[in-house]
Amino acid sequence: MSEKSRSIITLLTDFSSSDGYPGIMKGVILDIDPDAKIIDVTHDIPKWDIRSAAFVLLYAYEYFPRGSIHVCVVDPGVGSDREIIILETPDHLFIAPDNGLLSLIFEKEENYKVYIIDPELDIFGNISNTFHGRDIFAPTAAYLSLGENIMDFGEIYSEFKTDLIPGPVINRELITGEIVYVDSFGNLISNIKRTDIEKFHKRKNIQIEISDQKISGLKKSYDSAGKGEILALISSSDFLEIACCRCSASEILSVKIGAKIRLS
Amino acid sequence: MSEKSRSIITLLTDFSSSDGYPGIMKGVILDIDPDAKIIDVTHDIPKWDIRSAAFVLLYAYEYFPRGSIHVCVVDPGVGSDREIIILETPDHLFIAPDNGLLSLIFEKEENYKVYIIDPELDIFGNISNTFHGRDIFAPTAAYLSLGENIMDFGEIYSEFKTDLIPGPVINRELITGEIVYVDSFGNLISNIKRTDIEKFHKRKNIQIEISDQKISGLKKSYDSAGKGEILALISSSDFLEIACCRCSASEILSVKIGAKIRLS
Amino acid sequence: MSEKSRSIITLLTDFSSSDGYPGIMKGVILDIDPDAKIIDVTHDIPKWDIRSAAFVLLYAYEYFPRGSIHVCVVDPGVGSDREIIILETPDHLFIAPDNGLLSLIFEKEENYKVYIIDPELDIFGNISNTFHGRDIFAPTAAYLSLGENIMDFGEIYSEFKTDLIPGPVINRELITGEIVYVDSFGNLISNIKRTDIEKFHKRKNIQIEISDQKISGLKKSYDSAGKGEILALISSSDFLEIACCRCSASEILSVKIGAKIRLS
Repeated sequence: MSEKSRSIITLLTDFSSSDGYPGIMKGVILDIDPDAKIIDVTHDIPKWDIRSAAFVLLYAYEYFPRGSIHVCVVDPGVGSDREIIILETPDHLFIAPDNGLLSLIFEKEENYKVYIIDPELDIFGNISNTFHGRDIFAPTAAYLSLGENIMDFGEIYSEFKTDLIPGPVINRELITGEIVYVDSFGNLISNIKRTDIEKFHKRKNIQIEISDQKISGLKKSYDSAGKGEILALISSSDFLEIACCRCSASEILSVKIGAKIRLS
Repeated sequence: MSEKSRSIITLLTDFSSSDGYPGIMKGVILDIDPDAKIIDVTHDIPKWDIRSAAFVLLYAYEYFPRGSIHVCVVDPGVGSDREIIILETPDHLFIAPDNGLLSLIFEKEENYKVYIIDPELDIFGNISNTFHGRDIFAPTAAYLSLGENIMDFGEIYSEFKTDLIPGPVINRELITGEIVYVDSFGNLISNIKRTDIEKFHKRKNIQIEISDQKISGLKKSYDSAGKGEILALISSSDFLEIACCRCSASEILSVKIGAKIRLS
Repeated sequence: MSEKSRSIITLLTDFSSSDGYPGIMKGVILDIDPDAKIIDVTHDIPKWDIRSAAFVLLYAYEYFPRGSIHVCVVDPGVGSDREIIILETPDHLFIAPDNGLLSLIFEKEENYKVYIIDPELDIFGNISNTFHGRDIFAPTAAYLSLGENIMDFGEIYSEFKTDLIPGPVINRELITGEIVYVDSFGNLISNIKRTDIEKFHKRKNIQIEISDQKISGLKKSYDSAGKGEILALISSSDFLEIACCRCSASEILSVKIGAKIRLS
């Protein structure tokens, strides 16, 4: 089996699985590259929520094999004049609208190139104004997976959007961050990294404040507290996370994306 | 790799993914044809909603490669005396209960044959009365994907049901259609085709009426209106669609499947 | 194609598909075994509901090919001192936390061995305390699928938990069971087996009582009653099931998991 036939294409969208839109994208991909291996990251990003998409992509992409192609379609501007870009890092390719969805990858990776896709290429044929996932993203991924050159899709681009999610504000006495993702367990994941906390001079005796809740210290695991108790820990993606033992912290604290969180 | 091993089997059901029923169908298929490539179209058709299933199938199937086998199980009559049919078109195979689910394919395709499956074939073994997806549909798809002859499953059939969704009523002054599908974005998709509108003599100055809402003209994309504004456009499947910029048109207009829509 | 490359790995979790956690597990698996075939049983087990997971696994696993590896992660104790076990039966392998999730497989299978996984093996590298699905379960499944020896993961274990779901109480006049699973159709599936009923001396004239509802006799299929009518039948997994024709029996009877059901 050649290298080519091992290509993995991942899909991350806000399409939901209910209408068949991701299935259609897979049909388009397999029609071009019958050997493509397609893996769903998720299709349940909250509708039009670019920020959540950026965060899920950040914590997921590194677990896929070298050479994976990540197709990301949370794209409220579909059919307008927003651009579609390809981001090339040493180990991965990303295809996404230029709306900030890749901002956390730009922040994390050091060496990369960005290309802009020309939607008028013959390869795409007729393009709708409402479903570029099917008409542009899927065929681009499939042809790249077949080994086509990125340069055949468009030119190097430098004006891409990078400033979607601000990092936390850190000083010697206080770190102020915010909740950037709420998962299906109701776990509240912040933009404060493990390394931010380790650099923080008060790390041995951390006090956390979120909503009206005060939490002392970091626990090791969800089960380290009593059932229904709120706790803080380092998430599996190395961010500060507020959770609740066998309950939804989001529901119990009435906290959503954007809520402030303070460490002192 | 032989042609055979490239078979794609798609699944479209109202089973939801939560109970493992689609997973079981995949297990049955892979036990018979270990090389089958199985793609979910969707398992979230509203329960027992044959009409929505017919519509999703219509806009999805053509994007799958030639030779795909589409397994469609929205089947409230499972275990009763309703028949299960195989529809063969030049490029695709469909397996579905004979309850109208394939009606829009019958309408669209010109050359086809229909076969009735004999559930008493030895090949099926013991059959439950509640899960033919597992006991009849999945093994039929798997054996067809292995290259078995359709005629081994049953005989040519001509009394299949075809009259599920009426088309719009079109005259020179007015087109009256209805909403036939609501997707997870809340987009309202009607049974009025792009070609219906193009034939309509007033197309340059279209007025649309749905619920109490009046809409003037067609927009190009979702983002062509202000956030929260209702707009009309041609859907990616070439039907007249009512949408809302970054909102759910279904929620804002309180419109569901079956609602009337008028063009003048 | 070698036997190895046909390995099927199934996933059954309470992660939901929305956050990308199952996608990450697939990335980890494919990084180790690029030829693994990964099938979702479900990711929508109700959060932390070990009992429902045990029941879905019971009715699903046998439909997968010999040699399948079933990865089961409903694991509220992740990161605590609960163990992770591998269950080997003549035809299948199971990887699960030792929290009762495999109890119904222990009850059903006659010949099996149980192994305990040593999480400190070099093979696992750094392990988080909150996502063993990614850090332990997925790599274990992938290495087993590559043909690694189970004994390389840990030792034979005998103190596993087996007592999650009690069977029904059966005497000559009365069977008393309970609802152990509610599916997405609202069907109520009990722990009373077809064989329990067949042994029961009154089987010809069965009266069923659940909540305040009395049901006489068993129907053949969902459609054997009028729309909205409550009926009893034998489920596709051979358990006594209470259903409603084209409605949710769970909603109509306000019945949930744990409700008593009586046959006389």
